[in-house]
Amino acid sequence: MTKVEQKCRNAKAASVMLATLSSLEKDAALLAMADSFEANCDIIFEANKRDLAAADCAGISSAMRKRLELTSENIQQMAEGVRQIAALRDPIGETIEGYIRPNGMEVRKVRVPIGVIGIIYESRPNVTADAAALCLKAGNAVVLRGGSEAINSNLAIEKLIDESITRAGIPAGAVQIIETTDRAAANELMKMKQYIDCLIPRGGKGLIQTVVENSTIPVIEHGDGNCHVYVDGAADLAMAENIVFNAKVQNPSVCNAMETLLVSEQVASIFLPRVYGKLAGAGVEIRGCEKTQAIISVKPACEEDWETEFLDLILAVKVVSGIDEAIEHIRKYGSGHSEAIVTENLSAAKRFTNEIDAAAVFVNVSTRFTDGYEFGKGAEMGISTQKLHARGPMGIEEITTYKYVVTGSGQVRQ
Amino acid sequence: MTKVEQKCRNAKAASVMLATLSSLEKDAALLAMADSFEANCDIIFEANKRDLAAADCAGISSAMRKRLELTSENIQQMAEGVRQIAALRDPIGETIEGYIRPNGMEVRKVRVPIGVIGIIYESRPNVTADAAALCLKAGNAVVLRGGSEAINSNLAIEKLIDESITRAGIPAGAVQIIETTDRAAANELMKMKQYIDCLIPRGGKGLIQTVVENSTIPVIEHGDGNCHVYVDGAADLAMAENIVFNAKVQNPSVCNAMETLLVSEQVASIFLPRVYGKLAGAGVEIRGCEKTQAIISVKPACEEDWETEFLDLILAVKVVSGIDEAIEHIRKYGSGHSEAIVTENLSAAKRFTNEIDAAAVFVNVSTRFTDGYEFGKGAEMGISTQKLHARGPMGIEEITTYKYVVTGSGQVRQ
Repeated sequence: MTKVEQKCRNAKAASVMLATLSSLEKDAALLAMADSFEANCDIIFEANKRDLAAADCAGISSAMRKRLELTSENIQQMAEGVRQIAALRDPIGETIEGYIRPNGMEVRKVRVPIGVIGIIYESRPNVTADAAALCLKAGNAVVLRGGSEAINSNLAIEKLIDESITRAGIPAGAVQIIETTDRAAANELMKMKQYIDCLIPRGGKGLIQTVVENSTIPVIEHGDGNCHVYVDGAADLAMAENIVFNAKVQNPSVCNAMETLLVSEQVASIFLPRVYGKLAGAGVEIRGCEKTQAIISVKPACEEDWETEFLDLILAVKVVSGIDEAIEHIRKYGSGHSEAIVTENLSAAKRFTNEIDAAAVFVNVSTRFTDGYEFGKGAEMGISTQKLHARGPMGIEEITTYKYVVTGSGQVRQ
Repeated sequence: MTKVEQKCRNAKAASVMLATLSSLEKDAALLAMADSFEANCDIIFEANKRDLAAADCAGISSAMRKRLELTSENIQQMAEGVRQIAALRDPIGETIEGYIRPNGMEVRKVRVPIGVIGIIYESRPNVTADAAALCLKAGNAVVLRGGSEAINSNLAIEKLIDESITRAGIPAGAVQIIETTDRAAANELMKMKQYIDCLIPRGGKGLIQTVVENSTIPVIEHGDGNCHVYVDGAADLAMAENIVFNAKVQNPSVCNAMETLLVSEQVASIFLPRVYGKLAGAGVEIRGCEKTQAIISVKPACEEDWETEFLDLILAVKVVSGIDEAIEHIRKYGSGHSEAIVTENLSAAKRFTNEIDAAAVFVNVSTRFTDGYEFGKGAEMGISTQKLHARGPMGIEEITTYKYVVTGSGQVRQ
């Protein structure tokens, strides 16, 4: 048996016991986990510094470096995040619906854990803590496979998790981490269907595509966010300026940041000069279509720019004839994550929300709100960009399933 | 462009329009479809006879033949089934939840169609009608790929569907059928991720495994039902006799029929002789473990029998020491479909429902009830045996997804 298979098997064995733990037992373990992060933050820092040194040698982008770095504030947030998960209502055991059939049999649809969840992710070592805590609260075992760039941070965090939760009585094997970050280990993990019930890839296009093509385990894609803001001809331009600036600049390295701005030709000649100064002042590089270039002095955008999730202070800008062309552009290039329209016109807003096929569609709101906390749902596993099982922010309920429990008194089928 | 790709592309194009149709438009098309089945039943019979003649030459089992054959009663049921689907409440547009966040933005989780659903199925030509009608009602386009054994029936039914619904104003391409039944066409279909949002395989282990290993499209498995009834030491034996007989004999060719009977050794010597006469009288062939053979005169069961979904009047029987061994056996051999316990003991019932991981778990009820209609949910696409998106009977709500529609007045993220 390979190391990867052994880890998956450990998780599967633990999942049987995890499913029957009480909320009290799970929450005690989560609080112990949070305390351990705070008490041992030096260990995490030291490991993270080794990852950052390696990353600096390899010359990663500033946005990627930001995703990798753990500050003391981040570790405080990690611990607080775990405490917030402990404070959530336990979803397991909830009767989602229940009724009695005419023949007297009682049907209950009951929320249960999925079992074992596999997560393949890049950068962001705090995912290790968030994902482990959320899975544990929902009674799932988890197998984590982070990227090579964060391996030291991930191993340090997982070791603290494992020690603290097993001391609190959680079965060994509940949180497993794959130590080898080569492609072979990832490919092996994707075939572990007999042990893993659900695989969540979080990362860029390449990672998602590899998982989709190779996994035999059901996948919930956490794909890229090639998000658009469309400034309609009937937009309030002051509002549009704020939303565009926020969607691009407030945190450019995240999946719900805007990557392409679409502007109606009705307002382009007024709006683009206005927003240009503000964006340029924040260091945003703009790449525009020909019509954009005729209004503001920017670099030309090429086909690739419409397809790219920059995750950086770069913005593609296109002037469109109106809502039809905007919808067509988003249908062609959008990744189904978050799309926004700025308009005061009711019909335009209705068409946009009906015809755009994405996890979250916004009217007069920044795309940056696609997020479990911002939607009022608490901690999340990430943002699903597929349509099955969970779409958009994937919180604690989305990492559960259900079974039908039917009780009767000898009913047989006629 | 290949024929398969062209069909998938047609479906994708139709899905955009289908998503915006009103219930009135969809229901009118469904009623036209039902009328067409009745008015043209001769065409369906003639095609079905050709399939049956080919099947008889190939020498299929009686259970398989029963799944393939369409009687006039079946066609009447097909038409009635479609009318019942028309009468269902349209799930599309439903606000699943909606609330206002502290910053004033209004979040609504709205039910929308999945888009394009692909179905790969074996036998049972009525699936062609049921699946097309259910997909249409939920605003989805559908690409159907039936088995070679039912190809003439499927093509005849699809032609009637296509003619009747396009005449009623549904966009052409909404219901597509793959005419070639070779493996290459199926494999090609499984890679059509850019057009198909969800793939549902319905059939035996071989089919499911091929799809799971080759599909890049998210899959909802409709796998085999290796279902068990466990007769506990504390069972009401008269009730157990009825449930066992019903679960095996009432319709042995369906996925929720019992395939293995587990009997506690506390009651085996009384119960087995009782049920044996009744089952043998109905023509059931019993294959027993050694302990079973010591009580009733039956053939020996081999390892393969515990793994097999017979779909026929064959039953494997095992005497177990008690509930622990029963749960262990079901964990090892069960397919996660439907599992039943017969007991008057509350703790045994509770352990069984908590510890058995299946779509439906029954206490003192026949396994035969796992079904959309029997659960009171109306028409179904089939029974999902996986845990993501839908588990158990998959009705109209289970072939929808949702999106978040967020409206505001210029909210930006802090």
